[in-house]
Amino acid sequence: MDVAPVVGVTRPQGFSAAAAFAGIRKKAPDVALILSDRPASAACVLTRNRVQAAPILLCREHLEKSGGLGRAILVNSGNANACTGDAGLRIARESATEAARLLDIRPEHVLVASTGVIGQQLPGEKLVAVLPEVVAGLSRAGHDAAAKAIMTTDIVQKEAGREVRLAGGTVQIGGMAKGSGMIHPDMATTLAFVTTDAAIPPAMLQRMLRRATDRTFNRISVDGDTSTNDMIALLANGASGVSVGHADEQAFEHALADLLLELALSIARDGEGAKRLIAVSVTGAASEADALEVSRTIATSPLVKTAIAGGDANWGRIVAAVGRAGVDILPERLRVRLGDVEVLSPGYVSGHSEEAATAAVSKETVEIGVDLGMGSAEATTWTCDLTHGYIDINASYRS
Amino acid sequence: MDVAPVVGVTRPQGFSAAAAFAGIRKKAPDVALILSDRPASAACVLTRNRVQAAPILLCREHLEKSGGLGRAILVNSGNANACTGDAGLRIARESATEAARLLDIRPEHVLVASTGVIGQQLPGEKLVAVLPEVVAGLSRAGHDAAAKAIMTTDIVQKEAGREVRLAGGTVQIGGMAKGSGMIHPDMATTLAFVTTDAAIPPAMLQRMLRRATDRTFNRISVDGDTSTNDMIALLANGASGVSVGHADEQAFEHALADLLLELALSIARDGEGAKRLIAVSVTGAASEADALEVSRTIATSPLVKTAIAGGDANWGRIVAAVGRAGVDILPERLRVRLGDVEVLSPGYVSGHSEEAATAAVSKETVEIGVDLGMGSAEATTWTCDLTHGYIDINASYRS
Repeated sequence: MDVAPVVGVTRPQGFSAAAAFAGIRKKAPDVALILSDRPASAACVLTRNRVQAAPILLCREHLEKSGGLGRAILVNSGNANACTGDAGLRIARESATEAARLLDIRPEHVLVASTGVIGQQLPGEKLVAVLPEVVAGLSRAGHDAAAKAIMTTDIVQKEAGREVRLAGGTVQIGGMAKGSGMIHPDMATTLAFVTTDAAIPPAMLQRMLRRATDRTFNRISVDGDTSTNDMIALLANGASGVSVGHADEQAFEHALADLLLELALSIARDGEGAKRLIAVSVTGAASEADALEVSRTIATSPLVKTAIAGGDANWGRIVAAVGRAGVDILPERLRVRLGDVEVLSPGYVSGHSEEAATAAVSKETVEIGVDLGMGSAEATTWTCDLTHGYIDINASYRS
Repeated sequence: MDVAPVVGVTRPQGFSAAAAFAGIRKKAPDVALILSDRPASAACVLTRNRVQAAPILLCREHLEKSGGLGRAILVNSGNANACTGDAGLRIARESATEAARLLDIRPEHVLVASTGVIGQQLPGEKLVAVLPEVVAGLSRAGHDAAAKAIMTTDIVQKEAGREVRLAGGTVQIGGMAKGSGMIHPDMATTLAFVTTDAAIPPAMLQRMLRRATDRTFNRISVDGDTSTNDMIALLANGASGVSVGHADEQAFEHALADLLLELALSIARDGEGAKRLIAVSVTGAASEADALEVSRTIATSPLVKTAIAGGDANWGRIVAAVGRAGVDILPERLRVRLGDVEVLSPGYVSGHSEEAATAAVSKETVEIGVDLGMGSAEATTWTCDLTHGYIDINASYRS
């Protein structure tokens, strides 16, 4: 059969999507729906924030009730439905139930997600009222409208697609996401929705999603620094007729992680006001945990991010961040690289060309490399630079 | 005898100070000296960063060698003498030795401090060349020039003074500091120099300085998030003839902490580009550690700080920060206050006047109050808002 060159959640067979304007935000479509035409395995990675929005609570409940199955994902932007108590949970439940009724599926097979302002009641009646229109609009072409409807402060639409050859044949993966790099990336809500026509048992699906998320979305973020609404959901409907066996697990997970990384990097790059993507690679660490901690400390340093916004090769700020990461290091072993320019060599030797270093931090993607000289473990995280645009967007987000 | 109404390091008897221009930075005096006219007890709280600047290493060495005594503090701005290896340490040592020679005191009785750019060699010859001029200029009035010479991105000069009545009589405390609020306050170098004419044994002095620092300077900062050069130094020369006995320890420490808090808050308020001081008080915590962690997570949230810069009472961002602090909470017990306005009551009740909340976050000092409802421990930290000015200053600090 034909594989349409779709990039997005309707790339795999058996999926349709749609969006509509419910009036939850002032303008632009604010409700999106993804549907599988048959039962699918469902997996979710949900926020670790102690304050969990109503849709997070409902997803957990539905996955438990369904035993890891699902068919639809209903998303709204403009309101996070967080800190809204029992009333908020009731509204989330009613919208899922109404969507299920219109789609003629079970309520627990509907996952819900929300993003927007915290602490205001979601206007449930508006959301429910628009559902017939959304359901009627479901189509393969709807991936585009759906990807647009979940954007908040995003500048660019984020979709991705992968084809994976497995022992039993070829399967497709599609996805869309919303989120912005910001200072701590995941303090603003990150949402990602992924679909595949591979047949995958729920437990394997959950395992692969967790691992792939840890190496991608969690690398553009600080562990535990999650918003109240963060969610990555994955539906696998088996419409390709190809099963992912244990021998295929690694290949599929690799493609899934690759797709998630593309979405995650598009979030890091789309930082609110950001001009540059920053990749922080730490090598020579005694452990991966050490490498990750050092990388994250650099990637979340506002001084480093502001210097790079200014095109300033201020490597002293990188070294200061390494020193306060709480990891055992020997400072005299440090090696620091900006792009291809080694700005600090072991023994505090620094004799590079300032012009070359400035050029390295003025690129669209800035590579910071730190070698600790303590071992052979490594880790990379990604972030964006910190510019005036960040202030402009976030000082008046609610208005 | 007369107690001059001096606020600064020459307030206590027996201290003089001076400053001069060595040419380490482009203009403005960049070297400061503080001298006690007699041997004094000396205490230091030094950075916990794993990358320690040469002056930090030398201070540790000198305090060890002198057994906690000292007479002079030599400070330069414009260059941090950090990541400068053996050459940097030699330059720090030579400047201390030369100052000691000119002052006719022992080299190990000279403490040194530096602030400025990391990773460039401190021009030691310029520093040494200006020392005769600095020494010749020592006077009681010199506190003012000294306080100015240690400023880098500081907007205002920071000095403070206290008078303390003890069992044996009255003693004076004086101090000066440099530093700016920023996003993580102590990622930029914080320096504070404090003098007193009380007689205090070195061990007691060190103990008091450590405790007072923990409750003040370390509350405008994230634990462990220190720069390569952070230092607080305290000289107690006994010139008042009044000893601090064990019965007086609490009273003196209280006054010392009060003075340090004034200096620390002036740093938080002087955040680079900051317009508002933010006080984050967390109450009802199960432990002080919990209260501190929640308070710090809120105080370092760029989303909270940016919202306040915009005068936006976006309490949802405060709640999201509480949830990701890694502390056990029950979200439905949360109570959030902006100034006098309770914006969230337990059970997710929120029915305040938006105008009143906006007014509360538009004050010069914004008070955020969070009650966790989990116990009776509490903690307060301080920070500043995040504005365009921060980007302007830090994107081009080196140029």
